[in-house]
Amino acid sequence: MSKGLPKRSEDYSLWYNELVKRADLAENSPVRGCMVIKPYGYSIWEKMQAQLDKMFKDTGHVNAYFPLFIPKSYLSKEASHVEGFAKECAVVTHYRLKNADDGSGVIVDPEAKLEEELIVRPTSETVIWSTYKNWIQSYRDLPLLVNQWANVVRWEMRTRLFLRTSEFLWQEGHTAHASKQEAIDETVLMMNVYAEFAETYMAVPVVRGVKSANERFAGAEDTYCIEAMMQDGKALQAGTSHFLGQNFAKAFDVKFATKEGGLDYVWGTSWGVSTRLMGALIMAHSDDNGLVLPPKLAPIHVVIVPIYKGEEELARISEKANEILSKLRAKGLSVKYDNRDTHKPGWKFAEYELKGVPLRIAMGPRDLENNTVELARRDTLTKETVNLGEVAIEDYVSNLLDTIQDTIYQKAFDFREQMTTEVNTWEEFESVLEEKGGFLSAHWDGTSETEEKIKELSKATIRCIPLNSKTEEGKCILTGKPSRQRVLFARAY
Amino acid sequence: MSKGLPKRSEDYSLWYNELVKRADLAENSPVRGCMVIKPYGYSIWEKMQAQLDKMFKDTGHVNAYFPLFIPKSYLSKEASHVEGFAKECAVVTHYRLKNADDGSGVIVDPEAKLEEELIVRPTSETVIWSTYKNWIQSYRDLPLLVNQWANVVRWEMRTRLFLRTSEFLWQEGHTAHASKQEAIDETVLMMNVYAEFAETYMAVPVVRGVKSANERFAGAEDTYCIEAMMQDGKALQAGTSHFLGQNFAKAFDVKFATKEGGLDYVWGTSWGVSTRLMGALIMAHSDDNGLVLPPKLAPIHVVIVPIYKGEEELARISEKANEILSKLRAKGLSVKYDNRDTHKPGWKFAEYELKGVPLRIAMGPRDLENNTVELARRDTLTKETVNLGEVAIEDYVSNLLDTIQDTIYQKAFDFREQMTTEVNTWEEFESVLEEKGGFLSAHWDGTSETEEKIKELSKATIRCIPLNSKTEEGKCILTGKPSRQRVLFARAY
Repeated sequence: MSKGLPKRSEDYSLWYNELVKRADLAENSPVRGCMVIKPYGYSIWEKMQAQLDKMFKDTGHVNAYFPLFIPKSYLSKEASHVEGFAKECAVVTHYRLKNADDGSGVIVDPEAKLEEELIVRPTSETVIWSTYKNWIQSYRDLPLLVNQWANVVRWEMRTRLFLRTSEFLWQEGHTAHASKQEAIDETVLMMNVYAEFAETYMAVPVVRGVKSANERFAGAEDTYCIEAMMQDGKALQAGTSHFLGQNFAKAFDVKFATKEGGLDYVWGTSWGVSTRLMGALIMAHSDDNGLVLPPKLAPIHVVIVPIYKGEEELARISEKANEILSKLRAKGLSVKYDNRDTHKPGWKFAEYELKGVPLRIAMGPRDLENNTVELARRDTLTKETVNLGEVAIEDYVSNLLDTIQDTIYQKAFDFREQMTTEVNTWEEFESVLEEKGGFLSAHWDGTSETEEKIKELSKATIRCIPLNSKTEEGKCILTGKPSRQRVLFARAY
Repeated sequence: MSKGLPKRSEDYSLWYNELVKRADLAENSPVRGCMVIKPYGYSIWEKMQAQLDKMFKDTGHVNAYFPLFIPKSYLSKEASHVEGFAKECAVVTHYRLKNADDGSGVIVDPEAKLEEELIVRPTSETVIWSTYKNWIQSYRDLPLLVNQWANVVRWEMRTRLFLRTSEFLWQEGHTAHASKQEAIDETVLMMNVYAEFAETYMAVPVVRGVKSANERFAGAEDTYCIEAMMQDGKALQAGTSHFLGQNFAKAFDVKFATKEGGLDYVWGTSWGVSTRLMGALIMAHSDDNGLVLPPKLAPIHVVIVPIYKGEEELARISEKANEILSKLRAKGLSVKYDNRDTHKPGWKFAEYELKGVPLRIAMGPRDLENNTVELARRDTLTKETVNLGEVAIEDYVSNLLDTIQDTIYQKAFDFREQMTTEVNTWEEFESVLEEKGGFLSAHWDGTSETEEKIKELSKATIRCIPLNSKTEEGKCILTGKPSRQRVLFARAY
């Protein structure tokens, strides 16, 4: 780490980009809009995946894999779906290269043109429902509770690492049900799974809600979502769960014999979270020194750094350090002992702060004498000296990591609360949005036209109609028309 | 399961295709050459992935993720590499669809043509080495030991589920080293990791060897491989590990400052296994009743089937069954209790045989009386009655599963040995190949021309030059020219 990060207060956007690169999370690739997820960043994503996968399986889902390519005609079968995705589709048109006749290198072989163009999946509803047609005959085949971990492509003109990239990694659940209510229940269940993951593991508090028609998934009847607040006052959609009604069943003619002897179209849901969560994780907690990772998703929980002069001192410190390391590992913690002689302790401190390691243990000759270690918390940047004779270090560290997890969540929660403002007039809306940002809880007349107008005027969109929003008489901030419920507006990533 | 599988002896190829579909492993997708991996098939792949991933990490590797797309010019930078892959590349040429002017649906927007075509990765050496250029400056940055789990596309004209599909899932390791020897050591290490995985987990014995020049990876200096023998006497390449020399470092100008103060090109390796392993697993062990899975990769180790008349009897059996189930699960085994009343025991027996569940426990009223259960092994199709008063069922079952794992391996090993024949003349070569198949251990003059000729005449290729092959004077079976080592020929998948 040659020099400090840009400050959040000066240039939040630059701070984010630099942090992602310097903390070895990701970088831009030679391919426009696509990213390389570097090993350290990927190790965080792997922890997210493992936990989410467990939660999906605990709720009865199984994994499968469907093709990367979608025939163009399939994408077109659901009208609003193709409308929503057509503008950002990567299209495969040929299947072979050949040497150029003039010897200038390889060119696309014009004779190897596909009869029907293939779309690189932007999402897999179409190819999956075309498959479900063969899997579902009767109510006995339902529910189908399938998830897929995959890469998808949506051609983006303006990209940002993790937040918006042309290719991203995600999971997409696709379920099929015999009744409307069961499908709605599944949609809500998965929104709640996402919310629990965001809050308990990512330490990111989220608002659970429903999207307005404008922001709904292309092909869904309802989109449930979780919305998070970033440190710059912008919102970030962290996950969506769609109730598809019978739209895709109708588009792909997926009917089932009901228990009562009839024939009906199948009810569907789909739900997904992506590597965008990495962006949310980074932006929610990190500071001007670098990443702040919640212990539950940190690849390394504790780093031990020896402070020494000469080989002999290092040997004595290492003996003690290895004892501690063994105890912590036995407790299931991921611990790194950094005894490299190529870097000074100060450099290492800064490096692990940049990388967001939740807890640092430093040990010098005086610690050896006193049977102590110095514990430094990444989240609060506070230090304390712990006497090894007085505490069982593994329990102490383990409890402290729990405290850190809670503290990070609480800090983000308090910030989110502070950044949520009830506004009742257009003037208030505009001034709060400009001066403070955050979530604006406001009345809206329920029409797409008004939402569109507000977006044009302010760049703020309705993030969601919160599920816990109480009924209340009010007037739309823009039109003054009657409204019975506040919705959450914000500028968003 | 409405009717039996085709018999292996009558139509091995049809048997395989039907087995893959009926055991719910995979099916063809609406997209030509691409497959859908169904949940049961995917759950086996997940077990493979988890074990391989652990073995990669235990040998010091980390995961990362690189883009799906490769600019055409990148692919062309290594001459033999593009030569090897150009004929099977899916090419992205456009990034948008639009509504046709005549209202006939969506068409590719001709105005959204990419400046440079993108290739859907057939393998990632090029995009990864272009990235490594920025990651590697000095010997201190080496070795880089990176793996990626990903999908790749190689446009195939003739496809078969798992064995050869246009899209497949795999892992690809890409490592960079400061010295030639270290890179060679890594190449050999990973071949050995693959061999250990194949033998210990898949229960598939493999020959470790080196490819001849004809069969080498496009861009490698040497390709190490593991070769397995299928029940129809054809060989299957189960994994490859490539020593890339400095080829990709030169193509992408990746140099490093050496410890001695010089500047040198980096040495590389790459290695991969894919969902093809699923094909190997299926074909190596399964029989005319269905799948035979080695316990270490079986998603369900034990199925318990109650045999009963009436609710009351089922209740009594279930009580005992649940006791056993708890004990087995506490031992870490995956157990299913199938008490569905919609299917008869005979149907269930056939179903779990088809699915390859290693062990079946049946319990009827007489078993209750006698405090026994009936254990049926999938691999040998043998049954035994076990007295629950005499053995701890969880230990008994656990040991039996180990025995099954060993038995399956030994059976495949014996078969492989029996199917390996030393031949010394062309006549012998031809007649053994026709009448028996298998591996033919024969002398070869070492030239690509002769290998090509043999392939034309017999459809057999050199699978590998086995690493344990001893030096021995001999004469090439085709040309009679001198040879100092036998190589393994076979017809192959």
